[in-house]
Amino acid sequence: MTDPATVTAPAAIRACTLARHPNGLPVAGDFAIVETPYNGLAPNQLLVKNEWFSVEAVLRRRLDPGDSPYLAPFSIGDTLDGWAVGRVVESRAAGFDVGSYVFHYHGWRDYGVLTAVEPSWTSPRVIPVDHVQKPEYFLGALGPSGLTSWAGLLLVGQLAENDVVYVSAAAGAIGGLAVQIAKLKGHRVVASVGSDEKAAFVVDVLGADAAFNYRTEGLTAGLARVAPDGIDLYFDNVGGEHLAAALEVLRPGGRVALCGAVSTYNTAEADQPGVKNLFKAIEQGLTLRGFLARMYHDRLPDMRADISAWLADGRLVYPENVVEGLDEAPGAFIGMLEGRNIGKTLVHL
Amino acid sequence: MTDPATVTAPAAIRACTLARHPNGLPVAGDFAIVETPYNGLAPNQLLVKNEWFSVEAVLRRRLDPGDSPYLAPFSIGDTLDGWAVGRVVESRAAGFDVGSYVFHYHGWRDYGVLTAVEPSWTSPRVIPVDHVQKPEYFLGALGPSGLTSWAGLLLVGQLAENDVVYVSAAAGAIGGLAVQIAKLKGHRVVASVGSDEKAAFVVDVLGADAAFNYRTEGLTAGLARVAPDGIDLYFDNVGGEHLAAALEVLRPGGRVALCGAVSTYNTAEADQPGVKNLFKAIEQGLTLRGFLARMYHDRLPDMRADISAWLADGRLVYPENVVEGLDEAPGAFIGMLEGRNIGKTLVHL
Repeated sequence: MTDPATVTAPAAIRACTLARHPNGLPVAGDFAIVETPYNGLAPNQLLVKNEWFSVEAVLRRRLDPGDSPYLAPFSIGDTLDGWAVGRVVESRAAGFDVGSYVFHYHGWRDYGVLTAVEPSWTSPRVIPVDHVQKPEYFLGALGPSGLTSWAGLLLVGQLAENDVVYVSAAAGAIGGLAVQIAKLKGHRVVASVGSDEKAAFVVDVLGADAAFNYRTEGLTAGLARVAPDGIDLYFDNVGGEHLAAALEVLRPGGRVALCGAVSTYNTAEADQPGVKNLFKAIEQGLTLRGFLARMYHDRLPDMRADISAWLADGRLVYPENVVEGLDEAPGAFIGMLEGRNIGKTLVHL
Repeated sequence: MTDPATVTAPAAIRACTLARHPNGLPVAGDFAIVETPYNGLAPNQLLVKNEWFSVEAVLRRRLDPGDSPYLAPFSIGDTLDGWAVGRVVESRAAGFDVGSYVFHYHGWRDYGVLTAVEPSWTSPRVIPVDHVQKPEYFLGALGPSGLTSWAGLLLVGQLAENDVVYVSAAAGAIGGLAVQIAKLKGHRVVASVGSDEKAAFVVDVLGADAAFNYRTEGLTAGLARVAPDGIDLYFDNVGGEHLAAALEVLRPGGRVALCGAVSTYNTAEADQPGVKNLFKAIEQGLTLRGFLARMYHDRLPDMRADISAWLADGRLVYPENVVEGLDEAPGAFIGMLEGRNIGKTLVHL
């Protein structure tokens, strides 16, 4: 770790931009690394040297043209963004001292010029780094991924006594935390993943009671094997056919926390199969509730208290899949969409 | 109305049975009227001469082979069933006096041989008929349709202050009640229907603020016109494309009460388009909750208190579409599935 006092401002900032809208699964040529001169700070701004940023599946949806106000689409040439942590190199903003660790939304670049604004979901914040609360954890277990898993199970999914919990994409950052939180709360937890290696990981490392590889076993057969009496809460990271299969085995009064739909992100809506068995929700009195972590922003301190304690006493593990350098970021992102990564995918600079 | 004391037990009971599983929209030949000898009552049984029974869209799902424990499918030759009211002609069951009005589940036949069992959703019950609480209302406004609309809006949909409410199939029994209850609670209510005649009916008679004919105007255009600022609560009687269109205009935190999916009942699951935009539920933090009226059985008295009061002072109307005689029941049912009926479809015997 470099002493920030010795870091000087750069002549230029390197950043990853959208070179063209992907057609299905993104390829390396959809991205470009560009340099922009650094011209110093305006009042109320700070310059941060990024140490880590995360790549997240939902970014895929923002690479297509669209008009969602909640997941703002990128135009060609835009610098990508996302969660990052770095240290302040120069500051003209009160409360952001040189050397402080800052959590912010200007990832996908080596330095970020941030403006100190009213606190919001994506505004820069100084974070209290220590030996448990490592800087990169604020991108994951103590940050948006942690909040997604924690709020998804406890607030959205209304986790209740004796619930059998099913988590898809369970070897990913969010799914892996959801598995562990549900186990720490005393539940039977079953999981689906996309490879035998991941199935072993979620059982042996994360502690799931059972897992299956949906690519080889199939969703219907896998669920019938690991949850022969059905499930009560489905933490859905995948959408599409995964959701449809879960609807078939949810018990009366069951709940679905709709967290992500990675199975749909690379496919035009017209070409998706759609969910055809929503009548199951009527027959069984099911509740499906969608959410984004930002909707539970006010509960960040509660989540951090829980997860920090579990991390500190070793009851929760947080695997990371780290690549080195900005140039590797598109590949890490594509690998995640292909289902090749285990744990939180991070870029270290 | 015949004096029950003058009614003698019949030599045979006429009933409508399933002659074959329909292929898509049912046709007359899928049904058969059969006679079965009446051989008297066993202990704890009663004989009821049916005066009214209702035909309901969800019965369509039970005409296909299947294995749902909640909507038990009929086999070839089975007598159809559903809600009915009639008067006791003979009784060997305590609490069921000759002449009493009884609400029960042995519709689709002229006489019902009922067994007095522990109270349950479909067990026979004596009902308190008067000039407001007409016998046939127990099949509708004061019965399952009333409970579906009332619980769907208030309990499932969690109707909240300032909600803009959207109701599909709004000229039907359940939709028409939902429109009126939401208006009585002070909300802006918009509606979709399948004909211009129905659109005029739901505005002029039921009091909706605006309505559109989805067949001519289209769902997207119709919703954009009647709810340009979006909706908060969708009372879904239709499913499929209606649900998908509503997901596009639900505001953050919006809710869907999944009540029925008549658009899907005549189509094999494989041939349905499916709902492809459930990601909207994630982006907007939406809640979709399915239910059947029976799940809110314990709230029947509360619903009857509300709706009886509104009926008594004329603030709620309850249109009925009545056909005469058992032989007309299949046609009335088919007409309802085709969208030809306004109000509650009833068979009078």
